[in-house]
Amino acid sequence: MDSTKTRDESSIDIPQSKSTKAKTTTAIATTKAITPHPQGGWKRGVAIFDFILRICALVAALAATATMGTTDQTLPFFTQFFQFQASYDDLPTFTFFVVANAIASGYLVLSLPFSIVGIVRPHAVGVKLLLLILDTVMVAFTTAAAAAAAAIVYLAHNGNPNTNWLAICQQFNDFCQKVSGAVVASFIAAVILIFLVVLSAVALRRH
Amino acid sequence: MDSTKTRDESSIDIPQSKSTKAKTTTAIATTKAITPHPQGGWKRGVAIFDFILRICALVAALAATATMGTTDQTLPFFTQFFQFQASYDDLPTFTFFVVANAIASGYLVLSLPFSIVGIVRPHAVGVKLLLLILDTVMVAFTTAAAAAAAAIVYLAHNGNPNTNWLAICQQFNDFCQKVSGAVVASFIAAVILIFLVVLSAVALRRH
Repeated sequence: MDSTKTRDESSIDIPQSKSTKAKTTTAIATTKAITPHPQGGWKRGVAIFDFILRICALVAALAATATMGTTDQTLPFFTQFFQFQASYDDLPTFTFFVVANAIASGYLVLSLPFSIVGIVRPHAVGVKLLLLILDTVMVAFTTAAAAAAAAIVYLAHNGNPNTNWLAICQQFNDFCQKVSGAVVASFIAAVILIFLVVLSAVALRRH
Repeated sequence: MDSTKTRDESSIDIPQSKSTKAKTTTAIATTKAITPHPQGGWKRGVAIFDFILRICALVAALAATATMGTTDQTLPFFTQFFQFQASYDDLPTFTFFVVANAIASGYLVLSLPFSIVGIVRPHAVGVKLLLLILDTVMVAFTTAAAAAAAAIVYLAHNGNPNTNWLAICQQFNDFCQKVSGAVVASFIAAVILIFLVVLSAVALRRH
């Protein structure tokens, strides 16, 4: 039993693994809290990839928040219909976008230590499960913000003749371009979060 | 070994489980394709709950699709600005909403057999992993549709003075109420899908 635990993991070859696995399961069950688990291998690799992806998602979410939050355009002229200035808080949807992406950024920063725990202890199940559940909620959150902003940006670009909503992007061109960029960044963050959920699920499954 | 396999699962008591578990793992590894696994317990319960939740999500997604797809209001009068009729295909966002919820409904119908496989074979990991990944994608899909439609419905209800977009719900009151109902149904479907992801994750983890 002790020889199984102290053996180098690369020396366990495939035909042996069925019997050693059964033994290791018993070893894990009995000495769970005391010793680090001998085989980490691909789970550690997945955890490191998880950490890197998490930083990418953080960058995307921060970029979305910052771009949308600082977007501001003042026109050199004004008419009866259009104001001097366009900024994100003219539209409640964009305010929600900023808040949601800021929350997602905050969550991603706070999740980095847990991701490091996943690298140090590749077999810690509780941390992975917690991250998976919160990641899923954040997928919904980020996607909702991005989709709602995208619907409004589409309206700003094209208008809608049926409801008599006019396009405003002819006037506020810079504003529209920056907002579109923020929406794209937020969608990228959402896609990376989906990958994180998939990664956690793959790492969680019984082997 | 054979006695372990043929024993009724309710007769396995907790203090024995560590040693029997190690033996059963070996039994599973050797006779995976032939015999059903003896211990299912809470995993089977989770799978049945998964099936029920999946039907609830299907009902919600179908309700959202049907409500939005059949919404149609003809006004008894018309002015220079407003048309006779409002239906979902006047706004591209609502068309996306119908398409996305129809796809989600179709996916949920197709996933029901896989969920049944999860009930019959509580230890089948591949099926659960597949469902978890596709469920996560559908969470993003349904949430995007619901959020985009919600942004437009909000605009239809309240308008936006900064962009000179007028509220249309005074005129199209029935239309707005039905659309709001569809958005709520879609959000319910998204929340149930998040629960499904969490359930799959809990069932996937090593025990």
